[in-house]
Amino acid sequence: MTNETICAISTAPGVGGIAVIRVSGEEAIPLCDRIFQPRKAGKSLATQPAYSLTYGTIVEHGEAVDDVMMALFRAPHSFTGEDTVEITCHGSIYIQQRILQLLIATGCRLARAGEFTQRAFMNGKMDLSQAEAVADLIASTSAGQHRLALSQMRGGFSQELKDLRTKLLHITSLMELELDFADHEELEFADRSELKELAEQIEKVISRLVRSFKVGNAIKNGIPVAIIGETNAGKSTLLNALLNEEKAIVSDIHGTTRDVIEDTMYINGQQFRFIDTAGIRETHDTIESLGIERTFQKLEQADIVLWVIDQSEANQQIAQLSGKILPLCQDKQLILVFNKSDLAEENPTPSLAGFPQQTRVISISAKQKKGINKLQDLLVESAQIPSLSQNDVIVSNVRHYEALSHALEAIHRVQEGLNNDLSGDFISQDLRECIFHLSDIVGEVTTDEVLGNIFKHFCVGK
Amino acid sequence: MTNETICAISTAPGVGGIAVIRVSGEEAIPLCDRIFQPRKAGKSLATQPAYSLTYGTIVEHGEAVDDVMMALFRAPHSFTGEDTVEITCHGSIYIQQRILQLLIATGCRLARAGEFTQRAFMNGKMDLSQAEAVADLIASTSAGQHRLALSQMRGGFSQELKDLRTKLLHITSLMELELDFADHEELEFADRSELKELAEQIEKVISRLVRSFKVGNAIKNGIPVAIIGETNAGKSTLLNALLNEEKAIVSDIHGTTRDVIEDTMYINGQQFRFIDTAGIRETHDTIESLGIERTFQKLEQADIVLWVIDQSEANQQIAQLSGKILPLCQDKQLILVFNKSDLAEENPTPSLAGFPQQTRVISISAKQKKGINKLQDLLVESAQIPSLSQNDVIVSNVRHYEALSHALEAIHRVQEGLNNDLSGDFISQDLRECIFHLSDIVGEVTTDEVLGNIFKHFCVGK
Repeated sequence: MTNETICAISTAPGVGGIAVIRVSGEEAIPLCDRIFQPRKAGKSLATQPAYSLTYGTIVEHGEAVDDVMMALFRAPHSFTGEDTVEITCHGSIYIQQRILQLLIATGCRLARAGEFTQRAFMNGKMDLSQAEAVADLIASTSAGQHRLALSQMRGGFSQELKDLRTKLLHITSLMELELDFADHEELEFADRSELKELAEQIEKVISRLVRSFKVGNAIKNGIPVAIIGETNAGKSTLLNALLNEEKAIVSDIHGTTRDVIEDTMYINGQQFRFIDTAGIRETHDTIESLGIERTFQKLEQADIVLWVIDQSEANQQIAQLSGKILPLCQDKQLILVFNKSDLAEENPTPSLAGFPQQTRVISISAKQKKGINKLQDLLVESAQIPSLSQNDVIVSNVRHYEALSHALEAIHRVQEGLNNDLSGDFISQDLRECIFHLSDIVGEVTTDEVLGNIFKHFCVGK
Repeated sequence: MTNETICAISTAPGVGGIAVIRVSGEEAIPLCDRIFQPRKAGKSLATQPAYSLTYGTIVEHGEAVDDVMMALFRAPHSFTGEDTVEITCHGSIYIQQRILQLLIATGCRLARAGEFTQRAFMNGKMDLSQAEAVADLIASTSAGQHRLALSQMRGGFSQELKDLRTKLLHITSLMELELDFADHEELEFADRSELKELAEQIEKVISRLVRSFKVGNAIKNGIPVAIIGETNAGKSTLLNALLNEEKAIVSDIHGTTRDVIEDTMYINGQQFRFIDTAGIRETHDTIESLGIERTFQKLEQADIVLWVIDQSEANQQIAQLSGKILPLCQDKQLILVFNKSDLAEENPTPSLAGFPQQTRVISISAKQKKGINKLQDLLVESAQIPSLSQNDVIVSNVRHYEALSHALEAIHRVQEGLNNDLSGDFISQDLRECIFHLSDIVGEVTTDEVLGNIFKHFCVGK
């Protein structure tokens, strides 16, 4: 880390009533003082206490640029852990740019994406998993995402990892004490049965965290839903009917980014992500065709499968496809959607022999938007996201999931070693590996390259 | 004005690193304290000094919503003149909306557009012309607009008006003292020659302000430029060539709103506004047609006229149109643009007899983008915007211009009355009218309807 003082516009891009420009680094206060003229003489930032606001004018070559409010933070009691000034100016783009350019001309450097948070991490204000949660928090668009990210940012996950590492270090130190006295074979500081019990405890916690990723990922990226069925069954109409409902819902919230995330919708604050199955091409004759195969592969990614069936051909379509579809739905939530209720005379009563027991069935008309609300209820029911409290630790980050998976493998080897009475040095090595992977999550052993990758996905100004 | 406490998101809409929610009103501090849990116990906002920052958490039903920084301002030392809290939260739309909704549930009301500034005006923190300048400042996209708005917001214009009114009140009081002693006809407290001199001074200042509107309006809304000429002369190609240059320039500034302002460009920080002359339809035969008439009407609005002429038909086109065009360009800047230089063998040397002396001439190829930079230089030259210092008072607001025009008429009647030795009560009435119009500018006599009209054009949150 350099000692350069960095600056960036930290509020959303565009015109607003006000905007905030953040300046952080060793020289933040003197550099800001050079362009700042306090309303009351003698109130230069250097003379002001931390956590204070000072009113005045940004001045360039004697000319006023804007009347601003300067918020002052002194190291280490700031977000970055460095001296920090936050300039609140009027929100015209022209003014924001003028002040930013003036800061750069005065000696600041434009901050890279995520650099303020990276500095907070480097300066020990938060661990890496907390820093990553800052980006998740800013990107959060649903109650679930928000709760996950906030809990992680506030250190819930970090505490869980810390507890784990304390236990692991306890076993490791016992194992390694044995190694130091390896000549005295009769010595066994670490009671093996106690060690096994401890390893089992640790395995349980890591295993729970690894499993939680399924939930965490569904909350963060949406629950993957596949809509399958023959083309004429009305899949596209159904998807549009679902998404149109959604459009009406999100339009209340100004500025949501729905437009860029295609085929995603929220029901009851839970995000659903529709897997693109555009590759489907059903043909009655060549059911084994490549298009169908691709669709079935896509099924793998889904948690929920909406199988859309034309009511008038229900028995026929079920007979043709169930042999292919049902085996792929064993660990998924299957919803049978009998479409075109407007055209059918009565509800179909096809045989559902061989279907999973929890299969849900609904009759709708996608075209007339009948039954769509009820289908949404079924989707929520099928999502099975446990209602989380703030204290639940849920893994939602792929990097964390991978590190935990490696840690889990290592702890499994430890357990195996203990069961097989392997010598302490083998077991100790696996224990160290387990600790290494947990340390990777909080950023204690993380390489610069990985760090660079993490922070470059932040927005500038955070 | 009610005492309701209002709240709004004050930063630009959308996702940013951080966002600021502003709360203002009598109950701002206790209402914010109800949803705020300071990091250090006992640091409730009510106990904190003005101009302080307090770190803590926004809490709803015991659940954390976000970690935030609370900036505290106490009446009357805030923007609005009321108790004000500015909440800096993480910039996700979800969080911004959650906090806003929580504030509303707690007892705040969502602010109307411009309501914070309106309260600043109502509470005597600024006069109406300064309040109007806040909106102009936020909307400013060029150095000139920025300088005008900032100077006006900081009270340059208000001071000028105040000086004028002091002088007017001085004459008026002398006139009205005479009226009180109307029985004693010999009495003349106000020396008429002194009064005439004073009225002349006042007339000069108001007259200068009225004239400055031409410059102020050009700076604020762009200098109006009309491109005329026969269709085949290459007007559209020229406009595109000019605007394309501009696109490259503005794309450096993230988030500029150029897209919504059609046919506007900046050269050297000066805005030019191209008047839509789409109605033009030149026909060699029916030169008197309706389309042409409309174009000539549009010419009236222009300060600068670009007359585009095909070089190969220069003499012919000039002969055909100059009789119509030249009389309309007497008080305008005329630039003759000889286009299609790529096709011509040599520069045209048509006779410019009858053209205004200051007519500028340039040879270009719009298609090959040759000479465009030089044409831009000519536009800047023709714009003739005096370089302004921060102390120049320039009127840029139509409402102010109209009020000043009325004031000017009134002072003219005063001068006339003085010259014709009219009785003091007539003159006094005109003086009062002049004062009324100046008071309207600073908002002292302005109706609620006019106020409502002014503030509704602000953005919410300011």
